[in-house]
Amino acid sequence: MGIKASTETKARIGVAGLAVMGRNLARNLARHGHTVALYNRTPTRTRALVEEYGHEGAFVPADDPAAFVASLERPRRVVIMVKAGQSTDAVIEEFAALLDQGDMIVDGGNAHFEDTRRREAALRERGIHFVGAGISGGEEGALNGPSIMPGGSAESYVFLGPLLEDIAAKAADGSPCCAHIGPDGAGHFVKMVHNGIEYADMQLIAEAYDLLRHVAGYRPDEIAGIFRTWNTGRLDSYLIEITAEVLAHTDAATGQPFVDVVADRAEQKGTGRWTVQTALDLGVPVSGIAEAVFARSLSGHAGLRQAARSLPGPSGGALPPESGGFAAQVEQALYASKVVSYAQGWNMIDAAAVEYGWDIDPGAVAAIWRGGCIIRAAFLDRIRAAFAADPALPTLLADKEFAAEVGGAQEDWRAVVGTAVARGVPAPGFSAALAYYDALRAERLPAALTQGQRDYFGAHTYRRTDREGSFHTLWGGGREERPTG
Amino acid sequence: MGIKASTETKARIGVAGLAVMGRNLARNLARHGHTVALYNRTPTRTRALVEEYGHEGAFVPADDPAAFVASLERPRRVVIMVKAGQSTDAVIEEFAALLDQGDMIVDGGNAHFEDTRRREAALRERGIHFVGAGISGGEEGALNGPSIMPGGSAESYVFLGPLLEDIAAKAADGSPCCAHIGPDGAGHFVKMVHNGIEYADMQLIAEAYDLLRHVAGYRPDEIAGIFRTWNTGRLDSYLIEITAEVLAHTDAATGQPFVDVVADRAEQKGTGRWTVQTALDLGVPVSGIAEAVFARSLSGHAGLRQAARSLPGPSGGALPPESGGFAAQVEQALYASKVVSYAQGWNMIDAAAVEYGWDIDPGAVAAIWRGGCIIRAAFLDRIRAAFAADPALPTLLADKEFAAEVGGAQEDWRAVVGTAVARGVPAPGFSAALAYYDALRAERLPAALTQGQRDYFGAHTYRRTDREGSFHTLWGGGREERPTG
Repeated sequence: MGIKASTETKARIGVAGLAVMGRNLARNLARHGHTVALYNRTPTRTRALVEEYGHEGAFVPADDPAAFVASLERPRRVVIMVKAGQSTDAVIEEFAALLDQGDMIVDGGNAHFEDTRRREAALRERGIHFVGAGISGGEEGALNGPSIMPGGSAESYVFLGPLLEDIAAKAADGSPCCAHIGPDGAGHFVKMVHNGIEYADMQLIAEAYDLLRHVAGYRPDEIAGIFRTWNTGRLDSYLIEITAEVLAHTDAATGQPFVDVVADRAEQKGTGRWTVQTALDLGVPVSGIAEAVFARSLSGHAGLRQAARSLPGPSGGALPPESGGFAAQVEQALYASKVVSYAQGWNMIDAAAVEYGWDIDPGAVAAIWRGGCIIRAAFLDRIRAAFAADPALPTLLADKEFAAEVGGAQEDWRAVVGTAVARGVPAPGFSAALAYYDALRAERLPAALTQGQRDYFGAHTYRRTDREGSFHTLWGGGREERPTG
Repeated sequence: MGIKASTETKARIGVAGLAVMGRNLARNLARHGHTVALYNRTPTRTRALVEEYGHEGAFVPADDPAAFVASLERPRRVVIMVKAGQSTDAVIEEFAALLDQGDMIVDGGNAHFEDTRRREAALRERGIHFVGAGISGGEEGALNGPSIMPGGSAESYVFLGPLLEDIAAKAADGSPCCAHIGPDGAGHFVKMVHNGIEYADMQLIAEAYDLLRHVAGYRPDEIAGIFRTWNTGRLDSYLIEITAEVLAHTDAATGQPFVDVVADRAEQKGTGRWTVQTALDLGVPVSGIAEAVFARSLSGHAGLRQAARSLPGPSGGALPPESGGFAAQVEQALYASKVVSYAQGWNMIDAAAVEYGWDIDPGAVAAIWRGGCIIRAAFLDRIRAAFAADPALPTLLADKEFAAEVGGAQEDWRAVVGTAVARGVPAPGFSAALAYYDALRAERLPAALTQGQRDYFGAHTYRRTDREGSFHTLWGGGREERPTG
């Protein structure tokens, strides 16, 4: 059976690239009543989609890009779902050459936002809207409702928004988990920050588990129960939910807890790394995300770990397990550290908005992460509310409610980090978050000494607390101070 | 008085770019008996150098690049000392066009090693040796003996090495602080790591000061005394020495300790950031350097700090100052954290050597940092010795002596971090180093849970502890396990 582009039915939107993400997105669109043009380089995939899922809605399959583009309503909406990488530019150009002014190309892959900025600028010159859209939620989200973060021009969102909002996840209050994030690369930027926060969340959960296991002595199934309880409170979230599922699972082959037969080597695909590298460029501390990325890297360095395994730990020997109150303390530490990670993530969004001239609504970002994506959580509605109350909030930690909660948590948080340190259980995420909290609230930081050293060895000058201007002390001479600007 | 290139005297080496670093390097060469060709875009600088310092040695000034190049012995040695940045390529090309096969261009600026790799490859095509040379020690080092880290071809080092070793700092054992690091960008890479380690060192010193000040209640001049004592022991180093100088200094205008009138805002020029970004690309955890970079960034975020200043700290109120033993504990924590930072730095060098096919002698790097540079320290001779004993040492922490020291320090280290956490004094560097130490020596890491979660939400698969291959659990189905490769 050959596939021909229908010459009668015009499709509202087209999806090019029908691997699992593209296929599911196309089905999601069709299920919502939109006629969807389909194209894949290998036509067998196109055919398979129509044969298997043709009953779900109206599809217009095409064998080549020209037929695909010809089958679209104007202005044309082309969603490209290919693996991010070097071929993306070629695929984009292939379609751009067939499009007219006012048409739209949506890149739904995980492109780096700088690539998206470059592509958007180049296509804008040609009158084509290029929309880098972060799509979170994996295969299942693509089919049943992802969180969608489109960047690009506001004009393009007029045409794309209604369709994307149709297929997006819906938050508990019914609103779609999709909003126009901002110009050019803003959508992919925000998706990157989402992934960075996801890394931090997962690392904090891992530390909480590790402490419950190795300090309190709980079994994995008992810890699953603790996470299930947490999931009914302020930590209610997809990641906490699946943590309980993973911890409760028994390996069929050995009868051991599943988590004990899995190699302790966490892999990564690179968006966490991008987030930290970008934060460094923006001058934003993201210690929570950085420690999460480092922890994954460290876990995979088998040779290094082997070489260091005999290093001594605390000499206290086997301390008695902590009492039942320890789990409640860990919940406080986990929650407070999580607030810090999210605060750092939103600081990145703020800094990028300034750097790139994006007008991003921070509350809208929280709102569209409430459903569909990996970090979906009740918590995000609280962040939405915090920015609704004060859109210029400089840090989540300054929001009255979060400040009160973290303030209330801090004694337990300190106790948990202190225990981890004393017992020799690594808790880099909890520790970094607490150090950040203490640094942020410090009246004076020892950065004054650092700057004094820089002036000493490199004449880098310093500012004073009591008057304007820059100064240098003649350290090698009589130690007089000279104004330098 | 006009300047003419001498047609009689041939110069052994030329320095182009006579701002302070270039000028001092040229004087250093001349003082060592080498005839030095001089060129600067603005001839007044060339003239000033000859007028002021002509008595120090033999200079051959030139008004234009052609005359400058013509005045050099063959193969020609051209050292370019311009500010790293966009103009570097143009300056390099200006000289390259005048050179012949076998001639050498040395870039003594702080170029990114990736730029150096690109430039080296392009010039190699044309038969010209391009040598990215890290030079550390600032203005004073350039004049009296810097630490020099040249990359580029081994052949170029035959011609450059003797001159560079002449002008380099000398270690306590008399050996020059200069060695051929490795091909193409290896020299600038190692210089970058040097700077990253410098950031970490300075942050750890700042934390030690902060704890002595705010936990033990010592005055800056008392802390200066403590640092002076430390400087006679295993922490003996330039940075500890100048810390004591800065802390002992009294501000003339106010009579206050100098460190108290300096604004607590540490600036940075970007090489620390580069180090962390590169480590992320290489998959090497460098939490010590990352926390140092973040701490500087955080110190400058006035708005954020203002917004967070009222967040609560420990409710214990004013705890009594720690006893006299606390300073000794802080010394242990500082030393152990320092060993971790250096271990992480050398891990980067190892990883880069593999990634870029460089054959770097790790002990030689330690040897040439013993003098001339900002992190010069007795400690580096111990690192040199550790790699001499085992060139394949996977981490400094596995060296018998360092392992014994850090093992001996760890109880105090834990106590200091625990105290910082309990008292609300931020110690991100100490904390991160200790968490790294505990993670590295952990028998099992909670990365197994992280990988299990990744398999749950993204079918990313996992490995097992008990057999080869990759596996995926059908989480949404009957939870059977499937081999995937």
